[in-house]
Amino acid sequence: MAAARTPRQIGDEVWKTRVEKVNAELVTLTYGSVVAQLCKDFAGDYKQVNEQLDKMGYNIGIRLIEDFLARANTSRCRTFRDTAEIVSKVGFKIFLNVTPNVGNWSADNKQFSLIVDENPLADFVELPDDGRAPTELWYSNVLVGVLRGALEMVQMQVEAEFVSDVLRGDETTEIQVRLVKVLEDEMPVGDE
Amino acid sequence: MAAARTPRQIGDEVWKTRVEKVNAELVTLTYGSVVAQLCKDFAGDYKQVNEQLDKMGYNIGIRLIEDFLARANTSRCRTFRDTAEIVSKVGFKIFLNVTPNVGNWSADNKQFSLIVDENPLADFVELPDDGRAPTELWYSNVLVGVLRGALEMVQMQVEAEFVSDVLRGDETTEIQVRLVKVLEDEMPVGDE
Repeated sequence: MAAARTPRQIGDEVWKTRVEKVNAELVTLTYGSVVAQLCKDFAGDYKQVNEQLDKMGYNIGIRLIEDFLARANTSRCRTFRDTAEIVSKVGFKIFLNVTPNVGNWSADNKQFSLIVDENPLADFVELPDDGRAPTELWYSNVLVGVLRGALEMVQMQVEAEFVSDVLRGDETTEIQVRLVKVLEDEMPVGDE
Repeated sequence: MAAARTPRQIGDEVWKTRVEKVNAELVTLTYGSVVAQLCKDFAGDYKQVNEQLDKMGYNIGIRLIEDFLARANTSRCRTFRDTAEIVSKVGFKIFLNVTPNVGNWSADNKQFSLIVDENPLADFVELPDDGRAPTELWYSNVLVGVLRGALEMVQMQVEAEFVSDVLRGDETTEIQVRLVKVLEDEMPVGDE
């Protein structure tokens, strides 16, 4: 398997050779339409918009993981630290072509943060100027759903949430990911 | 300018050198979520879903064109036939990395079709199995909105619509584009 290669090497190689690509701007704008539509649907109830984006992401995540496993050919993660590396350097890399920094580990090694310096979803985005969006809307919340859905399919139940976002004027964009438990009821997708 | 290069060469070159890329699967799934959400919002009124996708596309198109003009550096289209070639071999190429065939020209040269053999939006998609979606929903209708919005920003008012879709069991996926009029009220974006 991939024993000799680092997650970064795996991510780079998969991205270069095995990924069908489209223009990032198209994703930015399409995602922007989604958020705008939801803000309209829920009449500016941003809490519900956040939830809906998370659900949407979950549904994307549980399908995206199949594509990931088919392409990435990584071995199973032994620790949650391995998982964090693979999420950042293979997962984000092959889907969004960015590599968030992993950091802010909790002492029990069950929680880390992804610090997303480049976020293609939010390029050139400005939040609605109604005074509330900047404190209530987590614009890129689809990502926490994707993480939750994708990791659940490989037997890891996690909680994920944005804790800061440059769109809100924060200094960084940070997603916190916490391992709730390792599921054991079925074989992981793609396991031998 | 680009006088000596064909639209295909321009498209290939821009795609290779100047486009920030993300995974096409991500777009497929994100777009799928949008359509699913709208089908829910409008309780299966597919006519309204089509309209909403078109509107969404229009809003994407009027912004995407800026990106297009900034990157593609093409000269102004002299005829609607030039426009068709640029739409297919530069526009679709640099955003979706596919090149639809241009055909079915009307005798007055004001209408052509884009025959979309590969449609990243609809990869692996199956329409809702309620017996109505396959005859009423134009799943990829965002594309006609994008065309309408983008072309309007370079002074061409067009009507665009899907006339067939392999998702519905048709043999081809075909978008008809008809020039309504050339607008003259203002300078085109990016014009010197």
